[in-house]
Amino acid sequence: MKVSIGSKTMALPTPAWLVGTYDAEGKPNLMTAAWGGICCSKPVCVTVSLQKPRHSYAAIMERKAYTINVASAKDVAKVDYCGIVSGKNADKFAACNFTAVKSELVDAPYVAECPLVLECKVIRIEDLGMHTMFVGEVMDVKVDEAAMKDGKPDPLLIDPIVYAPEDRHYYGLGANLGLGFSIGKELK
Amino acid sequence: MKVSIGSKTMALPTPAWLVGTYDAEGKPNLMTAAWGGICCSKPVCVTVSLQKPRHSYAAIMERKAYTINVASAKDVAKVDYCGIVSGKNADKFAACNFTAVKSELVDAPYVAECPLVLECKVIRIEDLGMHTMFVGEVMDVKVDEAAMKDGKPDPLLIDPIVYAPEDRHYYGLGANLGLGFSIGKELK
Repeated sequence: MKVSIGSKTMALPTPAWLVGTYDAEGKPNLMTAAWGGICCSKPVCVTVSLQKPRHSYAAIMERKAYTINVASAKDVAKVDYCGIVSGKNADKFAACNFTAVKSELVDAPYVAECPLVLECKVIRIEDLGMHTMFVGEVMDVKVDEAAMKDGKPDPLLIDPIVYAPEDRHYYGLGANLGLGFSIGKELK
Repeated sequence: MKVSIGSKTMALPTPAWLVGTYDAEGKPNLMTAAWGGICCSKPVCVTVSLQKPRHSYAAIMERKAYTINVASAKDVAKVDYCGIVSGKNADKFAACNFTAVKSELVDAPYVAECPLVLECKVIRIEDLGMHTMFVGEVMDVKVDEAAMKDGKPDPLLIDPIVYAPEDRHYYGLGANLGLGFSIGKELK
């Protein structure tokens, strides 16, 4: 039996990504975003949605660039902090003891301490209402050498954070459930 | 030290959602999608991206509706199956032993056996290249009574599947890492 909970922003999993930008003064800034996802394979694109009053919104509109930084579970408090405080009043890189690295591909900084980084150039802007969705073309993906295994990024070494809306808690990645395009063949 | 892996569809976490539609003959169909995410809080919207040759693409274009069905980890092989086989040649609901329930809000079916369901009306269609992104307004969210706790959907009871691109494995949800808008306050 299903319960109707109404038109809520509830889906699982949602990410807890750090969006990296330079503000008008050139200060590197971070914002936590859970509203986003991959949206195209060719060109490789990813969406992230921000509210207009956010400090990062103006930054993306100005420079048409952002990075997606996937933090490890050990940094979950830092990820939460970046969603609580505004870059208008704080230096979040300094507060988190994070190192801002200037991307050579897009006009935005990324977080040296995050094991997975996407460098994105804005190619489409969609005003949807409370949020504006930025479609970014992914110019490159960078992965910590220590999080690579057999030439591929290893999810358990990256150890990403999952956000659960409504419940409002963060979760880690769980057990390996099997190989895609493989374990379903038994049902054919 | 970071390794560049190029412009890849790699982000974490990504979902492994079952997209529910009715095809031209009115047959309920399912397709697995990992390219999607929440994109707006008001109106509540979610994106899902499909390639044009997909059977579900024509269905969504025709009926301007779809459901997002979040399956539990126990059904991971069924989720994988729905990404391998085309609805052109198979009755995936039957193969998965899933029950198709006609939504009363949108022209699409949802999966009775999935603990979390979003009923979506297409409000924007963006052709991005290999994929077309459908922005759906979420008309209602339905949750299994058994997956509710203290009046809210409980992520650990829903037990959703996380997909990891590149690595191509599915993962479960891990440990609770803490409360959002709370654990980051210590850094202020």
